[in-house]
Amino acid sequence: MRFGVVIFPSKEIQDFANSYRKRYDSNYALIPPHLTIRSSFEATGLGIQDIAKKIDNIAKDFQPVSLRISKFSSFAPVNNVIYLKVEPSEELEKLHNDLKLNFTSEQEYSFVPHITIAQNLSDDEHSDVYESLRMNKVSFEETADRIHLLYQLENGSWTVYETFRFGKE
Amino acid sequence: MRFGVVIFPSKEIQDFANSYRKRYDSNYALIPPHLTIRSSFEATGLGIQDIAKKIDNIAKDFQPVSLRISKFSSFAPVNNVIYLKVEPSEELEKLHNDLKLNFTSEQEYSFVPHITIAQNLSDDEHSDVYESLRMNKVSFEETADRIHLLYQLENGSWTVYETFRFGKE
Repeated sequence: MRFGVVIFPSKEIQDFANSYRKRYDSNYALIPPHLTIRSSFEATGLGIQDIAKKIDNIAKDFQPVSLRISKFSSFAPVNNVIYLKVEPSEELEKLHNDLKLNFTSEQEYSFVPHITIAQNLSDDEHSDVYESLRMNKVSFEETADRIHLLYQLENGSWTVYETFRFGKE
Repeated sequence: MRFGVVIFPSKEIQDFANSYRKRYDSNYALIPPHLTIRSSFEATGLGIQDIAKKIDNIAKDFQPVSLRISKFSSFAPVNNVIYLKVEPSEELEKLHNDLKLNFTSEQEYSFVPHITIAQNLSDDEHSDVYESLRMNKVSFEETADRIHLLYQLENGSWTVYETFRFGKE
């Protein structure tokens, strides 16, 4: 079974992201808009309850985390992904690293906090969409107080297994 | 904001349900396969955190609940919904009622525990699909130890806000 750990931003940001994802994100129907903290991993030999317990222990050590979004950005030329850039912070970095220590995932990119709004576009389409978006002003600021552990179904979509609130007793 | 409370069955059952939903369920992309405990409700004057607290208190009073699925069924002629029938039980009924006391929803059907696999089919298509399924043997039995509070995005899809484990301290 494949797992992932994400933050779902507020409904406001999710609706904003979906207004682009609907047209440009091939994963639109598979998962709501999200900030990936730990990307898709297999946890060999660990049951989902063991995984949940580990994440629960990690989450307890955190306080609610600020999310600041100020622009669109792109991972091109590495890949044609356009995203809402979430300003890096020590807390997000630490959260990512703590989860990384416990769960190894296949794709080890360096951690760039982001909310994907477009992917799997052709080079031309990516350029067109990114050019039209990159100068747009975006401004969201909010606090995330929880992370979610998800698992992937056979059709590629993701179901939430459990929520972990930061610092919760 | 619209809320709902559901049980997500195991990955095995979700994959089984999705093999039909993919073709026959117009809500396939909006939410993973689920058993609705409290259907879509508005909670006027209540913040999502108040709602979560109420549900947390309710969930604490429950022990894990058995889910037994033995056949396909249909809500026709009331509507063209085909579903996996979840055997009614006192615990599921009590869970539904406890949530009903706290949150009123618009559509007050009597509570029939089910996992939808087809909806919004034409009369002819509904008859064809149901005839081909109704004699099939289905047999799942498992225990659900949690419920999820979801909210609806503007595109109609649902995001999980929080998980509540039964009987958890």
